Amino acid sequence: MSFEKLYDSAKGALLEDYFSLLRIPSVSADPEYRADVLKGADWVEEYCRESGLEVERWETPHYPVIFAQWLGAGKEQPTLLLYNHYDVQPTDPLEEWESPPFEPTVREGEVYARGAQDNKGQLIYTLAAVRALLKRDGRLPVNVKLLIEGEEESKSLGLAEVLESKREALKADYLVPVDFDIPSLDQPAVTLGLRGIAAFEITLTGSKGDLHSGLAGGVVYNPLHALTELLASLRDKKGRITVEGFYDDVEELSPEERRRLSLDRDYEGAFGALANGGERDKTPGESNLIRPTLEINGIWGGYTGKGFKTVIPAKAHAKFSCRLVPHQDPDKLKGAIEKHLRSHLPEGMKLDFRYYGGDVGLRASPDAPHAQAIAAAYTKVFGKPCLYTLTGGSVPITAPLAEASGAIPAFMGLGLSTDNLHAPNEHFGIERLRLGFLVIAHFLHILGGSQ
Amino acid sequence: MSFEKLYDSAKGALLEDYFSLLRIPSVSADPEYRADVLKGADWVEEYCRESGLEVERWETPHYPVIFAQWLGAGKEQPTLLLYNHYDVQPTDPLEEWESPPFEPTVREGEVYARGAQDNKGQLIYTLAAVRALLKRDGRLPVNVKLLIEGEEESKSLGLAEVLESKREALKADYLVPVDFDIPSLDQPAVTLGLRGIAAFEITLTGSKGDLHSGLAGGVVYNPLHALTELLASLRDKKGRITVEGFYDDVEELSPEERRRLSLDRDYEGAFGALANGGERDKTPGESNLIRPTLEINGIWGGYTGKGFKTVIPAKAHAKFSCRLVPHQDPDKLKGAIEKHLRSHLPEGMKLDFRYYGGDVGLRASPDAPHAQAIAAAYTKVFGKPCLYTLTGGSVPITAPLAEASGAIPAFMGLGLSTDNLHAPNEHFGIERLRLGFLVIAHFLHILGGSQ
Repeated sequence: MSFEKLYDSAKGALLEDYFSLLRIPSVSADPEYRADVLKGADWVEEYCRESGLEVERWETPHYPVIFAQWLGAGKEQPTLLLYNHYDVQPTDPLEEWESPPFEPTVREGEVYARGAQDNKGQLIYTLAAVRALLKRDGRLPVNVKLLIEGEEESKSLGLAEVLESKREALKADYLVPVDFDIPSLDQPAVTLGLRGIAAFEITLTGSKGDLHSGLAGGVVYNPLHALTELLASLRDKKGRITVEGFYDDVEELSPEERRRLSLDRDYEGAFGALANGGERDKTPGESNLIRPTLEINGIWGGYTGKGFKTVIPAKAHAKFSCRLVPHQDPDKLKGAIEKHLRSHLPEGMKLDFRYYGGDVGLRASPDAPHAQAIAAAYTKVFGKPCLYTLTGGSVPITAPLAEASGAIPAFMGLGLSTDNLHAPNEHFGIERLRLGFLVIAHFLHILGGSQ
Repeated sequence: MSFEKLYDSAKGALLEDYFSLLRIPSVSADPEYRADVLKGADWVEEYCRESGLEVERWETPHYPVIFAQWLGAGKEQPTLLLYNHYDVQPTDPLEEWESPPFEPTVREGEVYARGAQDNKGQLIYTLAAVRALLKRDGRLPVNVKLLIEGEEESKSLGLAEVLESKREALKADYLVPVDFDIPSLDQPAVTLGLRGIAAFEITLTGSKGDLHSGLAGGVVYNPLHALTELLASLRDKKGRITVEGFYDDVEELSPEERRRLSLDRDYEGAFGALANGGERDKTPGESNLIRPTLEINGIWGGYTGKGFKTVIPAKAHAKFSCRLVPHQDPDKLKGAIEKHLRSHLPEGMKLDFRYYGGDVGLRASPDAPHAQAIAAAYTKVFGKPCLYTLTGGSVPITAPLAEASGAIPAFMGLGLSTDNLHAPNEHFGIERLRLGFLVIAHFLHILGGSQ
């Protein structure tokens, strides 16, 4: 039975399973969804068990990690560690969703739901391909370990806690997180690098309580002004981050790397906005893929309701995060950023600086066997040559996971930059479930030498 | 019966009435409180009627204005137009109140409630003094018109609509809004000027929907960055507003004005914050009282909940307002500010600019008979010389009201800068109800020549 036919026979159940998984609001960032995140873990555990995998549920201080393996390919065959996650991003602003985020809805071949792509769509085609191959052949071409965690959207805190104690279980030759994009639906690419991340929250306090903007205006230093000035001070007019030392450890690509990597894509088409927000002397692709960035993710303070209130608030808040390239140390940047903020703070203003932690960026080699196998699988399924690229996104656990498992990484997936992930109306194409299923099936066989 | 004894006999009812008025959540800015604002109007109307005043209820497109008068002093006596308001500011952040804002609570002689000072405290001693004098004497020393509106905290929109049609009713010699401060509890002062105001809201839109800060970061222009840069661009490092023409119509005080006006007060003590937020080459008193200011009143956008969300939001918002000094035209400033913002806007970013309207600032003469009478009343009640000062606050309707009534203004009240008005835990002292009652009683008699 060809993989195409195998997909046809699996498709009905795959879609049903996909929708049932999407209906679980497994938002790891919000404690109110705790029971639902645990329901997500149960769902994945049960699915893996029913697929004939040997399943372990690793409890962590936060959410469980589901670890499932099939090691019957023998010692001469490589061991592949696949990584996915069952948790999803929060849904707000809820009012901007055209259909409820946890009621998957199909419009023009796309499934709309929180997690439709990130990562439940990519998870389900991976799981379904493994299940279908095992069912058809009673075996897989390589040894496979599936690691499916529940806190990728919350900095993988639980998994990070147990990594050290699970080194033996995780041991593998190749690590492949299936949580990535291709440049377009007719252009496959293997992702060879991702950015690290460091996240921060600041609160400025100017006075004990809110003040009247007539009686105190022109007198006290308004924390909202201080906040806008502080945040504006982080970037200059050329889009460069002004924090001292911010770019110190950023390495330029070698000419060879630059030749092999595809750094161009249709950013304006993808985002419906001009690509003028990065460093002005870099291309958008360079800014997004090989340069670190600092983006404000949230800001709040004062009166934000209907009408008007002439207040000088006591406090002003912001959340912001940096994306890092390889060799940048998030903890070192944290120190540099805090120093910048404190040195730019108006006298008498109090700064609470919170560091949510960070993780380093990663680059993989296009010459690694699994990178080659992924490329060959893509080429077979898409019928055209596969590119090598990078992503501007991050999967923070990847670097520690590569270290703990001893595996070398490469990154795959079928996301598109138009999928609205982390945003309202996230979606993923039903056609991509088919393509993903086929790519996984080919990849395992090519890596196992049976194709 | 002395005024002191008159107060003693009125005190019980006054406190009861005050608390009952404070329990009405007459928040004019929030449509959800519409029924309560109307209840506030009913309460005031009933109180005035029971006091023996001739009462009219002026319906407006928004909230009613209660107009009450006693004109029995004769044509040879002056007519005084007193202004107060029965609406209050919103209460958020609600969690910062130590006792519920609409359950007046006494702690150490201070009554804590929204509106305790602004303006229900000042309203109740004014009304109670008029009622007590009428009851005792069957008359008042001057003709008195009381104008009590329900939208002072919402730009007096209703009253502004009916002003033109009520010119005859409003006709008066002297206009005295009772909504102002004294420098401290042992230092009375007549307020001779207030600042105008102009209020704005801006929304920046960068993309159709929220974006992922990894995939779009370094590519699109983040509206939160644009917002912080735009707002920061409005002031320079010396605290001067950078909008072209902002200070064009600001007039310096004459040496004579400067000599008679007291511009110093304990700003740091009042606000619990350094007085370093104004123009660096002015004193805090100058910045607050005789210079225009621009203060951000609210800011919001992106993810502001628990945890972290790596989003580049589609939109970013802010509310801000200017306080204006006499001769500055709010509509002209509006044009200048909008021009500044548009010229500093990143390419491709959409700006929605909303103008909530504005009103001019006012200055009164210390030589006017009613200003002299207020000063004499303060001196009598406090037993020490009264100063002349200005306020940094605004009562936007004052200028149009002075024009419509043909009356010259002066401003009085017993607020303190520590009263937390427009903020959580607003409060007003019971002792100040007594002082206010006495000041009003003396003022009417001095103005009427009977003292």
